[in-house]
Order: sequence, then structure tokens, then C-alpha cells
Amino acid sequence: MSHSSPAPAAPPSLDHTQTQPITDEEIFSSHEGGKLSVGVVRPLATKRDLSIAYTPGVAQVSRAIAADPDLARTHTWASRLVAVVSDGTAVLGLGNIGPAASLPVMEGKSALFKTFGGLDSIPIVLDTTDVDEIIETLVRIAPSFGAVNLEDISAPRCFELERRLIEALDMPVMHDDQHGTAVVALAALTNASKVVGKEFSELRVVIAGAGAAGIAVAEMLLTAGVRDVVLLDSKGALHTGRGDLTGMKAEFAERTNPRGVAGGTAEALAGADVFIGVSSSTVPEEHIAAMADGAIVFALSNPDPEVAPEVARRHAAVVATGRSDFPNQINNVLAFPGIFRGALDAGARRITPAMKLAAARAIAELAEDKLSADYIVPSPLDPRVAPAVTAAVAAAVVVGE
Amino acid sequence: MSHSSPAPAAPPSLDHTQTQPITDEEIFSSHEGGKLSVGVVRPLATKRDLSIAYTPGVAQVSRAIAADPDLARTHTWASRLVAVVSDGTAVLGLGNIGPAASLPVMEGKSALFKTFGGLDSIPIVLDTTDVDEIIETLVRIAPSFGAVNLEDISAPRCFELERRLIEALDMPVMHDDQHGTAVVALAALTNASKVVGKEFSELRVVIAGAGAAGIAVAEMLLTAGVRDVVLLDSKGALHTGRGDLTGMKAEFAERTNPRGVAGGTAEALAGADVFIGVSSSTVPEEHIAAMADGAIVFALSNPDPEVAPEVARRHAAVVATGRSDFPNQINNVLAFPGIFRGALDAGARRITPAMKLAAARAIAELAEDKLSADYIVPSPLDPRVAPAVTAAVAAAVVVGE
Repeated sequence: MSHSSPAPAAPPSLDHTQTQPITDEEIFSSHEGGKLSVGVVRPLATKRDLSIAYTPGVAQVSRAIAADPDLARTHTWASRLVAVVSDGTAVLGLGNIGPAASLPVMEGKSALFKTFGGLDSIPIVLDTTDVDEIIETLVRIAPSFGAVNLEDISAPRCFELERRLIEALDMPVMHDDQHGTAVVALAALTNASKVVGKEFSELRVVIAGAGAAGIAVAEMLLTAGVRDVVLLDSKGALHTGRGDLTGMKAEFAERTNPRGVAGGTAEALAGADVFIGVSSSTVPEEHIAAMADGAIVFALSNPDPEVAPEVARRHAAVVATGRSDFPNQINNVLAFPGIFRGALDAGARRITPAMKLAAARAIAELAEDKLSADYIVPSPLDPRVAPAVTAAVAAAVVVGE
Repeated sequence: MSHSSPAPAAPPSLDHTQTQPITDEEIFSSHEGGKLSVGVVRPLATKRDLSIAYTPGVAQVSRAIAADPDLARTHTWASRLVAVVSDGTAVLGLGNIGPAASLPVMEGKSALFKTFGGLDSIPIVLDTTDVDEIIETLVRIAPSFGAVNLEDISAPRCFELERRLIEALDMPVMHDDQHGTAVVALAALTNASKVVGKEFSELRVVIAGAGAAGIAVAEMLLTAGVRDVVLLDSKGALHTGRGDLTGMKAEFAERTNPRGVAGGTAEALAGADVFIGVSSSTVPEEHIAAMADGAIVFALSNPDPEVAPEVARRHAAVVATGRSDFPNQINNVLAFPGIFRGALDAGARRITPAMKLAAARAIAELAEDKLSADYIVPSPLDPRVAPAVTAAVAAAVVVGE
């Protein structure tokens, strides 16, 4: 690739000590004035600097880009700038709190992009929740950036929005709540299946939650070769006999659940190998207890897992959560910085299933040498992760695709 | 004001040496990868840092903003972030070169905002030139920023766009090509009138160019008390007898030219005290020669002034240009960083005429102690300017206005 941005700043160190509880005062004072700033790459210290970076020198660059638009890729920041876009409709576990209240999360996301991927990014929060209007708006401002990370956008709107944006914009677009989660879950499940000695493609997987994350995890697992996936929404297992399903749920009722399981977690989990919770619901201990020997439980809801990890451990061989205070944290930050960095480094126009599979494989491989029931994915702070994911994703790019 | 951003980085030093010519190679290599970067204010170095800046800590801040939207002003970066917005229709002297080719200029503008005003800003370039669509787009993304600097948008669209955006957005909005130029021109004319010993309000002023800058300069001078202003477009002086004028030109034909001057620069400049060129046209030496004694000539077109300064000096007592290689550089950078910083520091919802007058007065005052024909405005690199303009503008804010 012709251009690469500076390496990320000093990566976070591995610390497992978090002795003092975090106070509200600490959180709020750490957010005062916001968490981001815009810097000037080459300081403007002299008249000469001004004459180069601004008039009259800059006119040469503008004229050159007008004649050859490809030069915008190498001589502006935009082609490597990630827009972190949200309409504030599904922010963390807080729901539809609107664009202004979503900003601290988007700033945090930009901070993670910079810290782990060395990528510049800007939060763009939207005062509309209309899919047509969001697409129209992003198309109009698209020359300002080079990739779109959709964030915290509610299902089922997020599916249509992502699909249509991928068509409308000639740049990588990814809804991280879907695919970041799916990539890390796949990495974790790849390694967990090794820990329990089961064949990956033979796993019987139950996913609680058929929203943004659940659908994407199901899609990712099908792509990776799992054949028996059962998705549950709040009314139970998706199957072709249900008359109430539309959109992605109807599609996934067709593509999953080959045994036609009906009912709730009791029916779905009986004899299952894997439970993946992305539902903000709870699962009774006895349903977990009814899973197959060597069960794998990923209870990913935050801050309250679908089943407490200490309870799940009584019945499951491998337990993972989304929390930093338990082993096996399934955290999107393992995936998205490297996925976007790899895509941009390689000049990819889209983020393909092959790139996501490559990212999952890279994450899984980093944990392989120390694999255990309590170590199926690297730490979110492991500085090896983003470079490995970047390289794997870039290598999976088919230029022109 | 409850919140203020960090002071600007070390201000540019005053250097008047520019011995080596600037090469294209130097310009292009200085633009590689763009000129801006996004930084993280408080480094994410530990799990604890992550837990504060991102999940779970950030949820506290998002929840608080959802309950009290005013907290977005103090606990995100957006309320002090300037969007530098262009559609690429009137970029420098290059005309309508489109959004991508305008990006280096907008990045440069953001670099100036940071260097001189200590303000974060992001370029937003638009793939539409439709005024309705631009307004709609900016309204939709408005929760992402706290002020709008319109830049390089062609006349007459820029007038309607600015007027309607000021109505539509509850934040400071200013088209810098209009008002930045007008503020600095007013500052320079205030001091030039002192140098030649003429009463400011009695000046006979001719402005060549009735586009964005010309109209704004005329408006500013009328506001400041000049009574005899003649505006010229490519067909000559604007006067009420012309049947071809619409929009702002028709309005200014009514509000200016009290003596009903008709014709071109020959007729308008005969006996005039001041010539201000913002037209990209040329004025013959004999028209300048026909001005009154103690004439003032501001030939501001870049890179080619309406009349060469060495020619103008034969007939005028004070000569200014837009160029850094002659005395008296009329440069917007004297104004816009302090205008926006002052407006944001004081929590202004609009940039009013009083704030612009205050900015002009502050700029003029900084040159007063060394006033001469060759020093009517401070240098663009004078580090006293932005703080003085900021303070004057903030003091001129009427809260709630």
C-alpha cells in the first residue's frame, strides 16, 4: 500500500491489578472537555510552514487532486479516517438515548481506534433515526472520510442500514456491534472447541438473542462451518414453523435450526455443546446443567451475564463473558482496530467474510500457545493483537473486490 | 465559561526570512498522509483506563447526558469542536474543484484553528452543492460539533446558505471568506485612516468585487460607520438604476452608493479615498492615480493583486495585499481563530455584528503602538493576536443572544 499511518502510540501494558474501585467522580473528571483532540502533524511554526500548509502552497495540492482524484488518498487524511457513526438508538445497554448521549461512547471508540489501530477517527452522531436519511447524509459527507464504523444502531434497522451503506459507499463499512462481536466470538469458540476436544463443525450451538450481535454471530459461525445453530429471540427458537418472523429473523429461521427445535432455552440447550448469550436475558442454572458434557458457555451480556460465570462453571468446561473481571473476556476491541486498519492498509473497498474469518483466525492463534479453559482469547490489552489482525485482514483482501 | 480547552501549542515565531523558494516537492511531501491527526487526551494505558473511558465507565456519562443534555457541553469534545465545512465550489482562486480537492485547504484551516486558537476542528466536505441539501445534512450531523466555519462556498449561494444555517443551527456559524476578510479589512482600514489622517466615517470607499468577500466587507464598513461605499461587480458599480441585479447585489445597490456613481473603476475611483479589491480583476494604474490625496489601496486578490503594490505605492499613501511577501498582509488568520474561540468560550449561540466589530478593534489596537504606512495590521504570526481577539469577542457576547 502506498501510504501507511504512523504506528500506534505505546500500547497499553498488561495489568491485571485493578485494586481501587472506580468512582463516579473519577469517571466524570476523566470525561471533562471530552476525550479526543485534533492535532497538527507538522507544526506551523514559521511563515514558510504557513505558506506550505496553507496559501499559497496548498493550492498546488488541491489543483493536483482536482486533476487526479486518486491523490486525495495519499495527500489528505480522509482516506484513512474512520467515521464512527451512531444514531444513539442502541447505546451499550442503555437503549435509545439519542446522539448527544451516545457521544462519550463514540469518543471512546475513536480513542480505541487510535490506541490499538493507530487510526484517526471522528465521531459523527446523527440527529435522525431514519435509514434513508442516514444513508443520504453519509453519502453527502463521504468525501470527508475513508471508512465507516457503524456503532450502537438498533436492530432490525442496523441490518438494512449496513447492507445499503455498503452498496452506497465505495469504502469499508462495518457495524461493529454485529461483526466485531461475531469475529471475537468465532475466535473464542475456535479455541474453546480445542480445549474441550470437540470438532468445530460438529458443535451444536445455541445463541440467545436474535438482534444485531446474535444474527451476526450466527452468520459468522455458519460461514466458519458450524452446521447446527439455533437462534432464540424473546419468544424462543427461530424455526420455519413460526408465523411471526420477518426480515433477518425469517431468513435465519430458514438458514439455521436444521433439527427444527422449538421452545425456549430449556429445549434448545438440552444436549447442546455451546451457549452464546447476547440477549440481556437470564438463563436458569438447570438449563445450563442440561447441556452436553464439555459444554462451552459464552455469557456475553454486559454488565450482567446471562448466567453468572461461577454458576456456569459448575456445569461447563469453558466459560467466557464480556467482562474484564473474569477470564476469557470477549471484547470487540480485539477485532475492530485491526479489521479497519488491515482493510485500509490494503486499500480494500469492502470488509468481506474472508477478511472477518482471517481476523478471527489471527485472534485465536495468538492464544494457542497457552491455551486453557481460562485462556481462549488474548487479553484486550495484548499489544500483539492489533498488528496480527491487521496483517491477517490485509492479506485476505482481494484488491478490486 | 464553565469549560475552556487547553491553550494553543507554542505559537508560531515571527520570522521574516524566507530565503529558499518553496519547491513543489516540499509542498507535496509536506501533505503526504494529510496534515491532521486525532489524539487521545488521556492515554488508555491500563485496564482501568479502558474501564473509565469505555465500558463500563462511559455508560455513567452517557446516562447523565441523556438525563441532562447540557452535560454534553462539558463532558464531550463536540461543543467546542469546529466543523470546517465546504462544498468545494470556490476554493482559493481555483474555483469549483469539488470536495475532495478542497480537502487540503480545509485540513490547513483546521491546522490554523488549532495552532492559533487552540480549537479542535474537523473538515467536513460535501458531495452536494444544493443549499437545501447542505443545510439538511449539517442539521442531521449537528450533535457532532459545536460551531460551523463555512469555507470556500461560491456566491451567491453562500449568502442564503449562511443565513439559513444560522437559523437552523443553535451554534455559531460563520462563512469565513465573507466575515473573516471583512473583519481584517475593517481593522486595516481603521488604522490606515489614522495613518493618512482622515476621518473614518468620511471615507469614500470603492470595493471591486461583489461576491462573498466584497458584500461582507461592504456590510462591515457600513456597520462600522462608513457612509460612502461603492461596490463594483464585473459590469461596474452597483446602483439602483441597474436593472440586472438580484439578491444581495440588489440589496446592496440600495444600501450603498449614495452618490449614484455609475460606470467602472475609472468613474468610481476618481477622487475616492479607499480602494479595496476582492475581485481577481485588474485595475489600471491611471485609475489608481485618479484617487484622492492620501489614498489607501487594499489589493487583496491572491496570488495576483488587482494592482501591483509597487505600482500602487506611486499614487497611494498606504498599500496592503493578501500576500506574505509585502507589508500589510490582510490575512483571515488574524480573525477567525479568535472569533470562534471567543464565541465558544463565552457560550455564544451566534456571531453578531458586535462581536465582529470587537474582533476588528482588537486586531487594529495591536498595531497602534507602531503604526505606519507599512504596519497597519499585526503579522499573521503575531502570538498576541488570537488571545486579544478571543478576549474582545467573548466580552462582546450577550449571553442568550
